[in-house]
Amino acid sequence: MDGIEHQPVKGPRKKKGLLIVNTGNGKGKTTAALGMVLRAWGRGMAVEVYQFIKPPTANFGEHRAAKRLGIPVYPLGDGFTWKSKDLERTRALALEQWERARARLMDPELSLLVLDEFTYLLHYGWLATADAVEALVERRPMLHVVVTGRYAPAALVEAADLVTEMTLVKHPYREQGIKAQPGVEF
Amino acid sequence: MDGIEHQPVKGPRKKKGLLIVNTGNGKGKTTAALGMVLRAWGRGMAVEVYQFIKPPTANFGEHRAAKRLGIPVYPLGDGFTWKSKDLERTRALALEQWERARARLMDPELSLLVLDEFTYLLHYGWLATADAVEALVERRPMLHVVVTGRYAPAALVEAADLVTEMTLVKHPYREQGIKAQPGVEF
Repeated sequence: MDGIEHQPVKGPRKKKGLLIVNTGNGKGKTTAALGMVLRAWGRGMAVEVYQFIKPPTANFGEHRAAKRLGIPVYPLGDGFTWKSKDLERTRALALEQWERARARLMDPELSLLVLDEFTYLLHYGWLATADAVEALVERRPMLHVVVTGRYAPAALVEAADLVTEMTLVKHPYREQGIKAQPGVEF
Repeated sequence: MDGIEHQPVKGPRKKKGLLIVNTGNGKGKTTAALGMVLRAWGRGMAVEVYQFIKPPTANFGEHRAAKRLGIPVYPLGDGFTWKSKDLERTRALALEQWERARARLMDPELSLLVLDEFTYLLHYGWLATADAVEALVERRPMLHVVVTGRYAPAALVEAADLVTEMTLVKHPYREQGIKAQPGVEF
């Protein structure tokens, strides 16, 4: 945790569900969302993760961990769009996933909802940003929502309580033929 | 996980322990390290976390989760430096913690070592950056190390395989009197 949060806060100290956006071209967007999942789980809070891009067959470290922890992770996308042969199908699956996730925004039992790589639906125009932002803003006030993905649109940033941009400073090893490493990268 | 890792890699695909640095003034540095901890744990890999700033009494979401997962987290610092009344003691505790962590760099059983907020030791000059970087570079080659904290020195960035800067885009709610929220922020 960064030290900034620990400085004394003046004035009233309210509780509030946060709308958090992790964006930018760097790594760490989904990974930081997973860290929040772990924290919330550590406190006995109910968490659900909806992934919008990963294929349903994904079995990365986070899926294995979530399964062992009893955290629902729904990877109902259709793989990565630049590999998609049928963009219409990808779009339809993503919108179905959004309807499922959206239905969770009012559940009083849920404490943290992660919408992983959700920004692409907005960026590609599959879903109207205004509609998505409205649904997120009108969620149950104590629900924390974390949205990840590049190209977070301005209206989402505007509505969010906390926006972090992950910037790639250095990532040389991919060019050296070193593959993505299980356990830390996926 | 960001899509960038999933593009096909040309040429040889080597395995290698990565030296990863999460730096910058934004949030998500420790949180992304926790996400890697969760991934590695999900794959059955041995993980240890050394925290250099948090007080030994910390019982944040990550500590509770780690305890339940059986992941050792060593919060042996002396609290936050801007609150310290005895900087010499803080420095001595941090250096002791480094010696402990350093002794783990060669253990063949360990897969991931997190040095949380380690950069401050270098930034404040408590530890010579060249010595720390040398120890990290000469670690067991398959060990992944994640270093977090602001002000990562140039020599550490130079030695790292992957450096991400977390930049605060928006963080308005602290000024509105909304306190740090358990479960997502700590």
